[in-house]
Amino acid sequence: MYNLLKGKKGIIFGALDENSIAWKVAERAHEEGAEFVLTNAPIAMRMGGIKDLAAKTGSEIIPADATSMDDLNNLVEKSMEILGGKIDFVLHSIGMSVNVRKGKHYTDQNYDFTTKGWDVSAVSFHKVMNVLYNKQAMNEWGSIVALTYMAAQRVFPDYNDMADNKAYLESIARSFGYFFGRDHKVRVNTISQSPTPTTAGQGVKGFDGFISYAEKMSPLGNATALECADYTISLFSDLTKKVTLQNLFHDGGFSNMGVSDAVMERFIEE
Amino acid sequence: MYNLLKGKKGIIFGALDENSIAWKVAERAHEEGAEFVLTNAPIAMRMGGIKDLAAKTGSEIIPADATSMDDLNNLVEKSMEILGGKIDFVLHSIGMSVNVRKGKHYTDQNYDFTTKGWDVSAVSFHKVMNVLYNKQAMNEWGSIVALTYMAAQRVFPDYNDMADNKAYLESIARSFGYFFGRDHKVRVNTISQSPTPTTAGQGVKGFDGFISYAEKMSPLGNATALECADYTISLFSDLTKKVTLQNLFHDGGFSNMGVSDAVMERFIEE
Amino acid sequence: MYNLLKGKKGIIFGALDENSIAWKVAERAHEEGAEFVLTNAPIAMRMGGIKDLAAKTGSEIIPADATSMDDLNNLVEKSMEILGGKIDFVLHSIGMSVNVRKGKHYTDQNYDFTTKGWDVSAVSFHKVMNVLYNKQAMNEWGSIVALTYMAAQRVFPDYNDMADNKAYLESIARSFGYFFGRDHKVRVNTISQSPTPTTAGQGVKGFDGFISYAEKMSPLGNATALECADYTISLFSDLTKKVTLQNLFHDGGFSNMGVSDAVMERFIEE
Amino acid sequence: MYNLLKGKKGIIFGALDENSIAWKVAERAHEEGAEFVLTNAPIAMRMGGIKDLAAKTGSEIIPADATSMDDLNNLVEKSMEILGGKIDFVLHSIGMSVNVRKGKHYTDQNYDFTTKGWDVSAVSFHKVMNVLYNKQAMNEWGSIVALTYMAAQRVFPDYNDMADNKAYLESIARSFGYFFGRDHKVRVNTISQSPTPTTAGQGVKGFDGFISYAEKMSPLGNATALECADYTISLFSDLTKKVTLQNLFHDGGFSNMGVSDAVMERFIEE
Repeated sequence: MYNLLKGKKGIIFGALDENSIAWKVAERAHEEGAEFVLTNAPIAMRMGGIKDLAAKTGSEIIPADATSMDDLNNLVEKSMEILGGKIDFVLHSIGMSVNVRKGKHYTDQNYDFTTKGWDVSAVSFHKVMNVLYNKQAMNEWGSIVALTYMAAQRVFPDYNDMADNKAYLESIARSFGYFFGRDHKVRVNTISQSPTPTTAGQGVKGFDGFISYAEKMSPLGNATALECADYTISLFSDLTKKVTLQNLFHDGGFSNMGVSDAVMERFIEE
Repeated sequence: MYNLLKGKKGIIFGALDENSIAWKVAERAHEEGAEFVLTNAPIAMRMGGIKDLAAKTGSEIIPADATSMDDLNNLVEKSMEILGGKIDFVLHSIGMSVNVRKGKHYTDQNYDFTTKGWDVSAVSFHKVMNVLYNKQAMNEWGSIVALTYMAAQRVFPDYNDMADNKAYLESIARSFGYFFGRDHKVRVNTISQSPTPTTAGQGVKGFDGFISYAEKMSPLGNATALECADYTISLFSDLTKKVTLQNLFHDGGFSNMGVSDAVMERFIEE
Repeated sequence: MYNLLKGKKGIIFGALDENSIAWKVAERAHEEGAEFVLTNAPIAMRMGGIKDLAAKTGSEIIPADATSMDDLNNLVEKSMEILGGKIDFVLHSIGMSVNVRKGKHYTDQNYDFTTKGWDVSAVSFHKVMNVLYNKQAMNEWGSIVALTYMAAQRVFPDYNDMADNKAYLESIARSFGYFFGRDHKVRVNTISQSPTPTTAGQGVKGFDGFISYAEKMSPLGNATALECADYTISLFSDLTKKVTLQNLFHDGGFSNMGVSDAVMERFIEE
Repeated sequence: MYNLLKGKKGIIFGALDENSIAWKVAERAHEEGAEFVLTNAPIAMRMGGIKDLAAKTGSEIIPADATSMDDLNNLVEKSMEILGGKIDFVLHSIGMSVNVRKGKHYTDQNYDFTTKGWDVSAVSFHKVMNVLYNKQAMNEWGSIVALTYMAAQRVFPDYNDMADNKAYLESIARSFGYFFGRDHKVRVNTISQSPTPTTAGQGVKGFDGFISYAEKMSPLGNATALECADYTISLFSDLTKKVTLQNLFHDGGFSNMGVSDAVMERFIEE
């Protein structure tokens, strides 16, 4: 629409199906003139329609387990070959709690599950940047974005250990962002998105009620996956070169609400 | 460059001279296809070259004292006439401490000066939104941005009562932003910018040393006025529709630094 | 109970009646062995039973308009005479919005009311510290506390311009706290208290429903006035000498909640 | 000194030697009338003089690897036997980065080291609370405190992966604190302490220069281990019953400083 990413090259993690934020980012990045590689875990790719997305956006797919340094090394090397140069933007949209999937309550975790979820959801972001940084695979003024959720700052009881994983992820963004900025002029930020009815999000208990609550709390309503993609594009573009180490709320205002009139309506009869 | 603001209409407060962030925003907004009205205090306009900017961007100038409801009512009405419709974006870039100008220390303020500075620097933002809101002068999904500084959150000893004024300004953004979002789908945010060598900024004591300190602390270095204009454009564009009530740091990463290697170098010999 | 304030001398602003937090602080400070002066605005004193409190705690009362530098100078001088030395602790518990009282909506303020409320609720804190600092009236390792509310950070629609006043107040705590710490080893903090059914709090629209909402959101329930007094005592004591420039939430956990199970119950039937 | 903890029973993790904050907490808790069990990792106990501390405070020692659920179950059961009832307070003062010890840079971590450090420094806090919660081992209005550092919020380049571990730890405090508050009226907080020259802290590169920097930045100077113990006592006492889910800075004001005059002195000559 605006050619905001004309000539830019990227890697997009986590496009599972057309409800995925990463899917929308890929579509929008393509519209804005970017070239990119799509990647996802081999197991996730079997379920999703990522091949349709690749066809639609003229992209290649490179499967990679984001917890495997070997896979990530291969991904980054191949991506630079395919795209013909260094990388300008990366989207990390990966998260999974085994405790949630297996129905373990936060107060009664299985710590093997905890470790696995932490590795997939949080450490994978460090590993991705480790490979990009040490291979010097990013162009100057490149942009790395990871998706996160406000449970990193405030309690949402059903979010389980994903809250702690997102806190760790956001810390990685700051810690690694310092070195990536200082040494390679690359910025690193996280977007803290409204609850979004993606296929992944729907695994969380009571999700529909929560979507409704967040909608009533937010003065502009919940942000959609497509709107999140738009915002991500702005962070990949040259309009935001000096924004780094930030956790950016994209949530219709939810994060700075104490209470809204619409939520209070449920409490006034008392 | 991208046509990001094509067809959008705006009001830009605070373009004093070519060092002003507001001046750069006007230039960039013009490049992105926007039409807008420039405004400044009558007294400020005598000093600056705002007429050159108006000529260059095809804009009209409407003088207004931003502490006067009469002036602001006139400004908004005239702007809608000139632009032929409601407003899509507004930049508030206004700040002045009489205590700083008159050399009064923070611990020994003249409270008449304090009140005047608060009215100009902070309450003016409420008054601007009061007029826009009550006249229903903003289009849906419009965007209002005010410039601020991190002294609102953390102590910078020479920033004097501007720290408190900026804290009040940022609170207005949240408080009014709720009603503006709920009722008119308008978003309200503040940009917390690196120290910038504008004509206004240079009035602050020890400013050069401070610029150097901030440069060394920030992994990407200080953000320039032009980079701030780019970032402001992204917030006026349709890419950021669901970002509201936020204070957004645009500072090369300074806000999330505890200390950098470059700053520590000055302390390691001990 | 513990002799935590034995030998300490203080000034307590804002004890109106037995529902006041300042009233409870006075009672608890007396139990902990402190001596202090009570003060309030002359007009407030006519309404309240402050004389009973003075009798009960062996305190003298010095009326003072906290917006008047003359009154504050007199208060501090007289207090040191009465108490026989410098001051160890000060409580600022003062707040009033004329816009709220007169029924003016946030988006349609009367700016004379706004200025008056800001002066009473926020600038008064600066004036109190101005007098204490410039008279060198505080002992080293003294403690100054002001009461605030989370509307300074997040939107509570009915809190009106008190939100902005509290943001300004909290900024004063940081700004003045720096100089008071650096020069006189005095700490300055604010306590951000749960909504409390004081006589002042009850003026806010929909307050009962809001109390109920906050109770359901907070894992430990709302903090009472007496509990706030206990917490204040801890901040006046020698146990907290290095805590300064902080805004301390005393709210049963509300401030770090995104949503609680008890609140979500109202939204799950949808 | 004040009998603040008279009749209270506790468990204190992490007293290694007399430089340890946990050591000071044990001494102060003893002075305040508490009874408690001391615990540390078997390997750490061989190095430290924890037996002297036990003798001095009339405490028993129960070795426990805080990453082992078996050890923690044993610890909590034995502690209740020894102390003759449920627990009122717990201090978690445990942290260790294998990457730091082995000289691995943040951008080039060994992920086995990362996992080990995360388990010891962060997950151990979850495990401790898991055991206490599921055994219903805490009395109502009990208090759990973990020590942390501001690297969880802001970048300190040499703090390495401990920054991310502390972010995870602080998130656990909120996440588990919700359930512990809701179900057992127990509060959970973290204290974010000044850099402290403990035996553990001294392993961090450039620590002396950093101590000096923090001292110059903080209006009240760095907080000592003993002062931290005093503050911890206040959080174990009944004065702070409604403080929960908080991260509390105990740092002489560092956390809310942008820059101090003393730090700026090093930058003004430019």
